[in-house]
Amino acid sequence: MVLSGLGTVSCSVVLRSLINGRNNCNRSGTAVGTATVMPFMAAEMRRHCAGAGGGWNRGFPCWKRMMASEPVRPPAEAKSTEKEKEKKKSEGKSIVSSSYWGISRQKVTREDGTEWPWNCFMPWETYQSNLSIDLTKHHVPKNFLDKFAYRTVKLIRIPTDVFFKRRFGCRAMMLETVAAVPGMVGGMLLHLRSLRKFQHSGGWIKALLEEAENERMHLMTMVELVQPRWYERMLVLAVQGVFFNAFFVLYLLSPKLAHRMVGYLEEEAIHSYTEFLKDIESGAIENVPAPAISIDYWRLPKDAKLKDVILVIRADEAHHRDVNHFASDIHFHGKELRDAPAPVGYH
Amino acid sequence: MVLSGLGTVSCSVVLRSLINGRNNCNRSGTAVGTATVMPFMAAEMRRHCAGAGGGWNRGFPCWKRMMASEPVRPPAEAKSTEKEKEKKKSEGKSIVSSSYWGISRQKVTREDGTEWPWNCFMPWETYQSNLSIDLTKHHVPKNFLDKFAYRTVKLIRIPTDVFFKRRFGCRAMMLETVAAVPGMVGGMLLHLRSLRKFQHSGGWIKALLEEAENERMHLMTMVELVQPRWYERMLVLAVQGVFFNAFFVLYLLSPKLAHRMVGYLEEEAIHSYTEFLKDIESGAIENVPAPAISIDYWRLPKDAKLKDVILVIRADEAHHRDVNHFASDIHFHGKELRDAPAPVGYH
Repeated sequence: MVLSGLGTVSCSVVLRSLINGRNNCNRSGTAVGTATVMPFMAAEMRRHCAGAGGGWNRGFPCWKRMMASEPVRPPAEAKSTEKEKEKKKSEGKSIVSSSYWGISRQKVTREDGTEWPWNCFMPWETYQSNLSIDLTKHHVPKNFLDKFAYRTVKLIRIPTDVFFKRRFGCRAMMLETVAAVPGMVGGMLLHLRSLRKFQHSGGWIKALLEEAENERMHLMTMVELVQPRWYERMLVLAVQGVFFNAFFVLYLLSPKLAHRMVGYLEEEAIHSYTEFLKDIESGAIENVPAPAISIDYWRLPKDAKLKDVILVIRADEAHHRDVNHFASDIHFHGKELRDAPAPVGYH
Repeated sequence: MVLSGLGTVSCSVVLRSLINGRNNCNRSGTAVGTATVMPFMAAEMRRHCAGAGGGWNRGFPCWKRMMASEPVRPPAEAKSTEKEKEKKKSEGKSIVSSSYWGISRQKVTREDGTEWPWNCFMPWETYQSNLSIDLTKHHVPKNFLDKFAYRTVKLIRIPTDVFFKRRFGCRAMMLETVAAVPGMVGGMLLHLRSLRKFQHSGGWIKALLEEAENERMHLMTMVELVQPRWYERMLVLAVQGVFFNAFFVLYLLSPKLAHRMVGYLEEEAIHSYTEFLKDIESGAIENVPAPAISIDYWRLPKDAKLKDVILVIRADEAHHRDVNHFASDIHFHGKELRDAPAPVGYH
C-alpha cells in the first residue's frame, strides 16, 4: 500500500504540533498518520485502526520506499508541500529534515470509535486487574539476607509514616516515583548481562521492565489527582539520585537481596493502599471520579471512582510482590532467573 | 476460573526444571501452567492459548486467591503434593516457598499447535519486517554536533574494519552487543525523567526499549550461527563497560548528539549488512538455513536462509536509523521527545 502523500502530511502535522509548543503532550492530538505501528496483534490492532481511515498493511508501512545496496546520498531532499513552505518561511526553521524520516503515529481508536488519546500505552496493552489476588501473602524471613531485607524495609517505613501521616494520595504519588526504579534497574542489568554473556533472558528483562512501566502508570494516575509541591519535587529528585545508584549497586552485588527487598516493599505498599481504602470508605478521603487514564489503562467502567483505582493498583502491587519474592527464591536455589520462565504480560 | 491445582503442579514443574539445572533455558519446556499471562491482545492470545488446555480467563489468573485488608500472616504454608515431598527429601531443599508465589507461565502454542519454545518473546510480539524501507537515507550533517557525530562514527569504523575484515558474521554478533545498549540507556533515562518530573513520556520510553530489545534479538539470532571465542568475549566485556558508561553520560549531557550518533551508527550498520549480503550472494559466506528463533521472530518461511535473516535485520536497522535521526531532529527544534508521538510497536 502506497500512501507517501499521507506520510508527508502526517509528519507535517506532527512537526506543526512540535513548533506550536505542545508541552503537555501525552495525547496523540490530530496526528492522523500512515502506519508506522507494525504488524502484530493483528486482530486487536485492526479493530482499533482499520476503521479510522489511516490504513495499514500488516508488515508494510504505508509509504513508498526505495531499496539500494550502497550508502549513496539521495539525489535531492524531498520537496516540501505548500503548507510546509509557508511554515518554513514563517518560522524560519527547516522542517523538511524531520518529515524526511517518515516517523509518525497512526490514528488509533477505542472500540466506540473515539480517538485514543494516550501515547505511552495502546488499547491492546490495557488489562483488567486480578482483584482476587491473595493480599495476605508474606515471605517469612528465613536467613540473614531475608531478615536484613525485612528489617531494613520496616526501618524505612518509620520516617515515611512520620512524613506522610495519613496523606495517602501524596504518599502514593511520591512513593511510586521510587517504586518504578527497581524494575528498570533490574531489567537493564539483565539486558546488559544477556548481551555480554550471549545468553537468553528467560523473559525476565521484559517482566521487570513491565513492572517498572506499570509502577510509572500508577504515578501518572496519581498525578492526575495530587499535584506535588516544589519541596516535594526537590525531595523526589534527591531520593531518586540516591535510590537509583544504591539499587544499581545492590543489584550488581546481590540480586537475591535486591528482589527480596522489593518484595517486602511491595508488601508494605499493599498495607498502605489498604489503609488508603479505609480512609476512602470512612469518608476521610473523598471518593472522587477516577482519572481518564486509569479508566483506559485498567479498563474500568466509565463511572469508576478513586476506590476502584486504588483496588486495582493494590492488586498490581500484590503481583509485583509475588514476582520479586519468586525471583529471590530462584536465586536462593542457586539458579539464575533465566532458568525459570518469567511471568510476562501480566503487568 | 479456578485452577489452583494446576497452578501448584505447574510451579512444581518449573521448580523441578530449576533444580535439574537447565542452564540453557531459553525454552518454556513442559511448563503447562495456569494463566499468569494476562488479559490483553485477546484475539491473538486466545488463538495461541485456548486450545492448549491451559485455560485462562481474561483478567483473572486461573488460581484461587483470598482477599484481606490486613498484612496478616497466613495460618499455614500451602501443603506440598506427594511429588514435591519426595523431591524435597531427595534434594534436601525447600521448594514450597517458591510454588507459594504462584508464578508460572501458561503453555503457549503456535498456530499449528506446536508448543511455543521462546520465553523472551511471544507469538503476538512477532512481526514481518518492512523490506521496502529506504536504505539510502542519510542525514547530511548540518551543524557542529552533526559533524562531530558523523566524523566520530566514521573514525570508529576504521579499527572495526581492520579487526573484523570481511568476517561479517562475527562482526554482526559482536557489534549487536553494542547496538543494544543505546536504546536501553535512553529508555531508562527517559523513564527516570518521567518519574522525577511527573511527566508523560509520549511513548518514547517504550520506543527506545523496543529498539534495545530488537537489537538483542539480532544478537540472539547471530549467536545461533557464530560462537564467540574467549578473547572476543573479553573484548565484549571491556567494550560494554566503557560504552555503557560513556553513552550514559553522553545522553545526560546531550540527547541530541546521542541520538544523532546512533542514527549514523545505524547507517553504518546498513552498509555493513549490505556487504554481508554481497558475500552471501557471491558464495564467500555460506547461505545456511535460518535459525529457528529468527523464523519465529520475523515470521520467516520455514525454509528461510541466512540471506533472508540479514535482509530483515538490515530493514530493522534502517528503521532504528529513522527513529534516532528523528529523535535528534526533535531536540534540534528545541523540543523534548514527548512533544512528538513516538513510533511504538514497530520494533
